[in-house]
Amino acid sequence: MLSLIRTIPDYPKPGIQFRDITPLLQDKQGFAAMLDALAAHCSLMQVDKVVAVEARGFIIGAALAARLGAGFVPVRKPGKLPAQTIKQSYSLEYGTDTLELHADAIQANERILLVDDLIATGGTALAAVALIRQLGGLVTQAAFIIDLPDLGGMQHLANAGVQGFALYQFEGD
Amino acid sequence: MLSLIRTIPDYPKPGIQFRDITPLLQDKQGFAAMLDALAAHCSLMQVDKVVAVEARGFIIGAALAARLGAGFVPVRKPGKLPAQTIKQSYSLEYGTDTLELHADAIQANERILLVDDLIATGGTALAAVALIRQLGGLVTQAAFIIDLPDLGGMQHLANAGVQGFALYQFEGD
Repeated sequence: MLSLIRTIPDYPKPGIQFRDITPLLQDKQGFAAMLDALAAHCSLMQVDKVVAVEARGFIIGAALAARLGAGFVPVRKPGKLPAQTIKQSYSLEYGTDTLELHADAIQANERILLVDDLIATGGTALAAVALIRQLGGLVTQAAFIIDLPDLGGMQHLANAGVQGFALYQFEGD
Repeated sequence: MLSLIRTIPDYPKPGIQFRDITPLLQDKQGFAAMLDALAAHCSLMQVDKVVAVEARGFIIGAALAARLGAGFVPVRKPGKLPAQTIKQSYSLEYGTDTLELHADAIQANERILLVDDLIATGGTALAAVALIRQLGGLVTQAAFIIDLPDLGGMQHLANAGVQGFALYQFEGD
């Protein structure tokens, strides 16, 4: 499967090596194998709902939720969710961004699996964890396709009590 | 399942009744039943790849692709896909918008199922059909959760040789 992840140099800006999973997604065997691997990792978890961040996270999260028999909950950029939301801001390299979650999307003590395509510094994931916990959800596990370990996101998640798992690691280059 | 689609009045602007599928997605039985119904409709099709438009379309399309054993291909707003793309503009109520597809996402004669959460006028769907056909993909079927029949999108798709299917219809109100 690893050969189906391609590197796009200098995207979205110079110096960034973008890891593009679209060749993996569009390959029916690759897509199924990716879901098999994620589902196998989750086989001992009880998952009530998968929470995923737009937009690439929706692809992985919804497919995995379907595979696990869980519900699916979207976390979105501001103004995209139509009902009452809760909000969480987080720091970017320059400035801040905000994520939203429907206030009725999670009930107290529901078991949540956080899913995204990639973890870098973990800022997005930690903001999602904060939103889930604000509604009383229990989130101790997160699953990703790609981890960039040089950026420390998995450790930041661990410090927040969330064990992360990624199918692939890409070291700095 | 229908009771799990809620109507948000005056969103995103006054006079619009927004049909919100997030209560359906977050309900594990509802989400599974929705996928069962879509998959049953598709049971006689040969689908190589599901193509879906960001962002809500990703949720339905990726879960259905996983269920059907197909590949998944995202259609995105401009600037979001990292490799070489083809582009298609389409008319909105005021102005135009553009969609992009990776130029290597579809091979000639691959059988494509187009998926989105909702069809209104069909402008987005027809733009996606044009992109798929520009790469030589065969697209004769499209699946949606919600159809707004007053807006004529299904007929516009039919005029383009694409048979659309939706789980629910909401008449104007």
